[in-house]
Amino acid sequence: MEITSLDNAKIKYLEKLKQKKYRDSEKLFLIEDEHLVNEALKLGVVKEIYTTNKELSFDVPTIYITDKIIHKLSEQDSGAKLIAVCKELEKRDIKGNILVLDRLQDPGNLGTIIRSAVAFNFDTIVLSNDSVDLYNPKVIRSSEGMLFHLNIMRTDIVEFLKNLDKKYIKITTSVQDGEDIGEYKDSLVAIVIGNEGRGVSPEVSALCDKKVHIRMSNKCESLNASISASILMYEVYHG
Amino acid sequence: MEITSLDNAKIKYLEKLKQKKYRDSEKLFLIEDEHLVNEALKLGVVKEIYTTNKELSFDVPTIYITDKIIHKLSEQDSGAKLIAVCKELEKRDIKGNILVLDRLQDPGNLGTIIRSAVAFNFDTIVLSNDSVDLYNPKVIRSSEGMLFHLNIMRTDIVEFLKNLDKKYIKITTSVQDGEDIGEYKDSLVAIVIGNEGRGVSPEVSALCDKKVHIRMSNKCESLNASISASILMYEVYHG
Repeated sequence: MEITSLDNAKIKYLEKLKQKKYRDSEKLFLIEDEHLVNEALKLGVVKEIYTTNKELSFDVPTIYITDKIIHKLSEQDSGAKLIAVCKELEKRDIKGNILVLDRLQDPGNLGTIIRSAVAFNFDTIVLSNDSVDLYNPKVIRSSEGMLFHLNIMRTDIVEFLKNLDKKYIKITTSVQDGEDIGEYKDSLVAIVIGNEGRGVSPEVSALCDKKVHIRMSNKCESLNASISASILMYEVYHG
Repeated sequence: MEITSLDNAKIKYLEKLKQKKYRDSEKLFLIEDEHLVNEALKLGVVKEIYTTNKELSFDVPTIYITDKIIHKLSEQDSGAKLIAVCKELEKRDIKGNILVLDRLQDPGNLGTIIRSAVAFNFDTIVLSNDSVDLYNPKVIRSSEGMLFHLNIMRTDIVEFLKNLDKKYIKITTSVQDGEDIGEYKDSLVAIVIGNEGRGVSPEVSALCDKKVHIRMSNKCESLNASISASILMYEVYHG
């Protein structure tokens, strides 16, 4: 199949998926470029592929489009060569260590955290309802496609923590004081990372069993949220 | 002093400082917002301050400007309240642990690395000539003003590593294999972090004494550059 008009209904539909509200209602999202599309194909979540390169073919429906159309659909100034429509990730059972993100706002931070979670074997990420959208193109790009390897859910994290299996130690983070994460190397943990400016909300913090702190020079007030999350996951993994 | 016209020569001059070539030739750069300006004032690097708030006064020349002017000068869509002209940081003597950045490109990564370097007592950052500009507004913002606490230089890192005092162990990083950074906890180190996509260049890697690797799941190819840098500095600091 080939599409050459920007006014084509399919193209108009894809454009809408750039907005969170349409991604949510359609349960679909867009990804760009070979590396990401290959990761998604491996996981079987690709619905269809749009490309300007007529020599490419895939095991999913492939639609050939013009440079003008792909430029319109792409988030990159330079335009992509390949865009895929993916099905929203399905919730899976919770197992292994969990990272809970309380009002995380920066898409680059979320993407980076997803990459570190895969590196350090955290299987589940729980996003609070008011965190940045998982399917934001910047999140997907900075995750380097690693989002397909995790169980990621968006929910009310207060309810989530209240109902979490008692075998998990719920850990909040503090820039002032707390224990060393090394204490929990051999435990099953749910670590909460807070908002970039405001940290973990008091309501969420109150639901946690323990508080940890990353020791650092007093010249520095705090670390970037993706750095704190990654160091804590690294420490648990290397235990 | 008060300026109300966008055509004022001083304002035209400040606008030029948004470009790297003028920052380099004038040896000046701009910072925005109270938190950053306060950090810079403490360090004595502020030349003058521009603000829309006539109730503010400082120990450096303060120029009152209109909303329209500050909106033109600010990098933020919402506009700043306060902009300061700062003198480029001066090179200091090299002491303590060193982080060398080989062709680092992302401004957010550099800012985040600067913040972690202060947290984990790395005193010097050496940027290769082709790395992102230290005075890029996104670098300054994501460093949270921590750039004022470090000795940061831009130079030919091949020459730098060749001439570095022999008491330093020069360490390169690899995503495939290498030793654990824990081996060098009690040493004085110069750790090289490479470009986001391409890693450390072979010429730079060849000048290093040791190679370290952060152990991770084989599902993940590599970590974000700011995460690798921060974990290695964290490990050396916590040794």
